[in-house]
Amino acid sequence: MATTAGSTPSLQSFLQQCAARVEARLQAALTGAAPGAELLQEAMRYAALGPGKRLRPALVYASAAAITTGDTRPALCDDAAAALECIHAYSLVHDDLPAMDDDDLRRGRPTCHIQFDEATAILAGDALQTRAFELLLQSDAEPRLKLSLLTELARASGAEGMVAGQAIDLAAVNRQPDLSRLETMHRLKTGALIRASARMGALAADATSQQLDAVSGYAGAIGLAFQVQDDILDVTADTATLGKTQGADAARNKPTYVSLLGLEGARDKLAALHREALEYLDPLQGDCRLLQQLADYIVERGH
Amino acid sequence: MATTAGSTPSLQSFLQQCAARVEARLQAALTGAAPGAELLQEAMRYAALGPGKRLRPALVYASAAAITTGDTRPALCDDAAAALECIHAYSLVHDDLPAMDDDDLRRGRPTCHIQFDEATAILAGDALQTRAFELLLQSDAEPRLKLSLLTELARASGAEGMVAGQAIDLAAVNRQPDLSRLETMHRLKTGALIRASARMGALAADATSQQLDAVSGYAGAIGLAFQVQDDILDVTADTATLGKTQGADAARNKPTYVSLLGLEGARDKLAALHREALEYLDPLQGDCRLLQQLADYIVERGH
Repeated sequence: MATTAGSTPSLQSFLQQCAARVEARLQAALTGAAPGAELLQEAMRYAALGPGKRLRPALVYASAAAITTGDTRPALCDDAAAALECIHAYSLVHDDLPAMDDDDLRRGRPTCHIQFDEATAILAGDALQTRAFELLLQSDAEPRLKLSLLTELARASGAEGMVAGQAIDLAAVNRQPDLSRLETMHRLKTGALIRASARMGALAADATSQQLDAVSGYAGAIGLAFQVQDDILDVTADTATLGKTQGADAARNKPTYVSLLGLEGARDKLAALHREALEYLDPLQGDCRLLQQLADYIVERGH
Repeated sequence: MATTAGSTPSLQSFLQQCAARVEARLQAALTGAAPGAELLQEAMRYAALGPGKRLRPALVYASAAAITTGDTRPALCDDAAAALECIHAYSLVHDDLPAMDDDDLRRGRPTCHIQFDEATAILAGDALQTRAFELLLQSDAEPRLKLSLLTELARASGAEGMVAGQAIDLAAVNRQPDLSRLETMHRLKTGALIRASARMGALAADATSQQLDAVSGYAGAIGLAFQVQDDILDVTADTATLGKTQGADAARNKPTYVSLLGLEGARDKLAALHREALEYLDPLQGDCRLLQQLADYIVERGH
């Protein structure tokens, strides 16, 4: 794969830059509530602007850089990154609700329905979804590109993407474990949005369809790797490191890669996905070092 | 205002045609769930395809007819109408949840979380919102028109529209009644989507900005009239007629037009909004009879 000359950017400083950019965009986008709806806006800001890895934004910017060494349209990437964060944040708010996973703690803070109340959390999630589409609608891009970005986001979010994954996850509690169903669930529940992140960055940088396929394949592999590593950390890390309750998935009788493959089997799977992700980068022409480092980071995080 | 020659269409048959068209579009759109997500899809269909007045679709088609006697782009109107119904249905599903209005009955049927379960209802609402945007994204319209329709839908649905109205409604329980806040709440909670319905039909028919203003004004007035009539019916009609529990709003200590203005005051307000709506139609060039009849229907329903 192509790389450019010059010093290797540090992943940590890149992640910090990504976070700063997307948070600035979200700060600006999550304002202007109707009089009387201030609490709603506060809950939306709490959910979207709380601590987070900003992995999806990082994928947007890193994918754009992997497509072209020219103009990666940073302002459009900001809008795409902020839209993805709004979808991600809304899904976490709804996922944490008592009727869903019933989590009180998220990234070390009270979840949205604990900090506010359930009704406000439901509405904040709903409005964050809408805001995601508005962010792209208001972006500065030619109409066809804007529609492509909107289509990516919608397809990844809905009943054939993320929400389907959540529904399959719900149905999996106390069910006979099955590796293929687990993989389908993860490819939809978190994988679809991770893939969309990489694709939207690539689209902003005018990717060809072959380049889009490459970043899709890469993101599919690292999205799954992220989940395998999550399952490993769920049994090996402590609650403070996780920012959520350790062993929570196991306690819910949800099948995990560790419960299905054992700890060593899960680690082998993780290594294979890591290799697969890197191979997808071969045909790309831009600077792939950030995508490489992101893959490494996902596999090694928590160690 | 302009009318065309020929027999006056019957409102009932028009409403039936609208319902048939939008239901056919929804039937086709709410399929293809991922394996394992069949229950999610079933809940989405239950919510969107259950009995309903299809008032928003009727406004789409009637507004298009009021703009032009030429091509009203019926297929595009179908997509817009189905998108609006998806947003409307999702808002009802979430509004009925135990943490929100806690309603067991909607249009004479168990609400979505009673028929399925709370988690499935939350996800079905989420996915219906996404599907609304997908319906417009997949429509056959030139990119700029598609983006205008998407923008109307998003602006009406989110934290500056419908969801803001829901948040203000929540905050109003057990609060000192206030006519101005009540009106703001209704203009957002239901009015924004009703206005968007009329505007989207007008946009599909290539409305000028003056024509858009006219249908917006009309729809703003009938949207509010609908709520005033709802409050009147809440105290005068029985549960079987309403399809929901009679006196429910009053029992929740929510301010209503009747509690603030008295029954006669609310009826005067309704008549004034009816007149206002019809006056807005004056500058329109197309066939306004359906919009006139819809205004009459909204004011007279339940009598």
